[in-house]
Amino acid sequence: MSITRRDFLGSSIGSSAALAGMTTVEPGQLHRAIPLPEETRLWDLATPALVVDADSLESNLRKMQNVYSGNSAALRPHAKTHKCPVIARQQLDLGAIGIAVAKISEAEVMVEGGIEPILITSPIATRGKLARLLALARQAPNLQIVTDRLQNVRDLNDGATAVGIKLQVLVDLNAGDDRTGIMLGESAITLAGEVARAESLELAGVQAYAGRLQHVVGWESRRKQYVQMMGQVMETVAGMRQAGLDVPAVTGGGTGTYDINSEIDGMTDIQAGSYIFMDDNYQNIGGRSGQVFNDFDSSLFVLATAISQPVQGQVTVDAGIKAFATDKEPPRLRDIRGVDYRFGGDEHGILNLTEPSEPIAVGDKVRLTIPHCDPTVNLYDHLHVVRGEKVSEVWPIAGRGRSQ
Amino acid sequence: MSITRRDFLGSSIGSSAALAGMTTVEPGQLHRAIPLPEETRLWDLATPALVVDADSLESNLRKMQNVYSGNSAALRPHAKTHKCPVIARQQLDLGAIGIAVAKISEAEVMVEGGIEPILITSPIATRGKLARLLALARQAPNLQIVTDRLQNVRDLNDGATAVGIKLQVLVDLNAGDDRTGIMLGESAITLAGEVARAESLELAGVQAYAGRLQHVVGWESRRKQYVQMMGQVMETVAGMRQAGLDVPAVTGGGTGTYDINSEIDGMTDIQAGSYIFMDDNYQNIGGRSGQVFNDFDSSLFVLATAISQPVQGQVTVDAGIKAFATDKEPPRLRDIRGVDYRFGGDEHGILNLTEPSEPIAVGDKVRLTIPHCDPTVNLYDHLHVVRGEKVSEVWPIAGRGRSQ
Repeated sequence: MSITRRDFLGSSIGSSAALAGMTTVEPGQLHRAIPLPEETRLWDLATPALVVDADSLESNLRKMQNVYSGNSAALRPHAKTHKCPVIARQQLDLGAIGIAVAKISEAEVMVEGGIEPILITSPIATRGKLARLLALARQAPNLQIVTDRLQNVRDLNDGATAVGIKLQVLVDLNAGDDRTGIMLGESAITLAGEVARAESLELAGVQAYAGRLQHVVGWESRRKQYVQMMGQVMETVAGMRQAGLDVPAVTGGGTGTYDINSEIDGMTDIQAGSYIFMDDNYQNIGGRSGQVFNDFDSSLFVLATAISQPVQGQVTVDAGIKAFATDKEPPRLRDIRGVDYRFGGDEHGILNLTEPSEPIAVGDKVRLTIPHCDPTVNLYDHLHVVRGEKVSEVWPIAGRGRSQ
Repeated sequence: MSITRRDFLGSSIGSSAALAGMTTVEPGQLHRAIPLPEETRLWDLATPALVVDADSLESNLRKMQNVYSGNSAALRPHAKTHKCPVIARQQLDLGAIGIAVAKISEAEVMVEGGIEPILITSPIATRGKLARLLALARQAPNLQIVTDRLQNVRDLNDGATAVGIKLQVLVDLNAGDDRTGIMLGESAITLAGEVARAESLELAGVQAYAGRLQHVVGWESRRKQYVQMMGQVMETVAGMRQAGLDVPAVTGGGTGTYDINSEIDGMTDIQAGSYIFMDDNYQNIGGRSGQVFNDFDSSLFVLATAISQPVQGQVTVDAGIKAFATDKEPPRLRDIRGVDYRFGGDEHGILNLTEPSEPIAVGDKVRLTIPHCDPTVNLYDHLHVVRGEKVSEVWPIAGRGRSQ
């Protein structure tokens, strides 16, 4: 990409002002793409802005779908990554069997946007959330939720009975993360039996998400640990079937094991999320063919502006702790070598110009990589969609902040 | 506070469902407090929820205002901490001389909410932002912006001339942070002269924000470094005045130096922000009278729910990386000792029940401390206002995500 970064030299006030007006989106527009004026260029965007490269995104979406279209397992993308009904729609249109979300409030946004079927991948534990779940299941009858304990099965069943619905429930198995899920073995088989026997519940399958293992560095090591873990999961699933239970779905997996899951006999679908954006952290775990996991393109970035140069050898950009997730390594520059970013507070970042491959002056815009995509996306209301240098659309991140 | 945490035992579906409906706020309501039904209790809130203790907040607001009401310097609270017009209004009503914001987009939200006068504490560097600044200054004639370089002064002047306004500009001085601001001494004096002579600009003063020094651990060490730094700033201000310039405002300082600023002769106002919430990080810098800086109350917390217990000795809550800023130490439990929180991914936290002073079971709600307030507040749309156990109001965080 050719870089025409200096805002004062190139851009028009008009298109920037038009974009400024865009920051207030009508409620009904939360689930649709918003077209932008023809002339809107990447370098016109008000910064910090979250931007996705449309070609890279489409390539990622197709590649993962192609892997699973010819596979015994299907693709059920996890929407906690993008929280964006426009992307969920694209995933479904390409052949995904449904969408996974982490929380009830995300499911509500997706249902509002006409996205279904939806699986909620975390258990709920309160009466308030149960009420929301039941209300949503009446709107979207193929909504699915996970459970990991007996009292919860009873509560779900009582609730579903009270409102007169049949609720689809998956047993959440602890696949080594020790985060949610019932322990493998007898207790899980017993719980599945309780779901199957509950009057107003339907046993839709099991979930076995080994999140920790998605991020094991080194493909062979990841493969070995994952195959071993999922082998144990499959023993429990076999036990359920031996007990006479119908277990239609065995869902789990993610981007880090996308090319390992096919070795797990009996997986029915894969909850990959990050493949659409591919952040720095995922690239660093290594792929099947090398030290960088680059099977998918890095499609997401933050556009920032150099706003000050108080001392020689560094410049200050307008994107800091409020513009990036900070739980991983700091962002890097996408286009310029010999420059390091460090956080300079909530609103600012400092670029150390050690040996810059291009000069960066005040007023210039720079593209910064995404250390960790899910919580970075969660900081923004809009995803700007760019092809080359042209910004074609804005997609509302309708589920932003929906952590409930 | 007595703890009645077990949601299934105590709360009604009704009020939780009412709150669920609250998550969609009408645009016109973004700047006003939203009353809640009488019976809404803290433990009824959908979690994770950001909550402020009204008594502690009011105490903090009054305490800081009282310090500065009898002082040669005034209080100009920094709204980047709360991004909430309801709180800004309270600060002004108590006697603050105005509000500081970090970015244009925050200023836009505050002006929409009827908050003024406003100072924007970061320089702008692009034509798009200039257009927005000028549009806003026409609406709010006492809007102030900082500048730190000559080309920017010319751009501001050209813009103000083009739209026929007189723009109030402060010279941003580099008070040791090397983040924004012109170097102290001759270059700063020259720049101030350029502002004063520019046809459509008015030199409103200087800004000297020593952000790094706000967080120096140990009060005496902080005091020493701060007094020394601000002494250099005042020499530059004296140089401006010797050059015949009128320098009405000398603004800077923050919560960490709130009881040191009075020693700086010539400061006109203080941009304190965090004092209203007092996060863990600020408490740890130490105060004048001890190792904990507890002159202000810790008023803010996140309410979370225990949703799973996959293994003995720990329990999983529904608040993770998307619920807290992660640039400082992890959160702690407010009410229960012998329990450690660690991040368990984007949506979850793990409580290690080492020696819990109270049992925590699935369904229980817990109050978690705020490691770093500004970027944590920036993750939430609403601030729930609690008195005792009763939630009286919801305040929209209208500036959430406004980092542009």
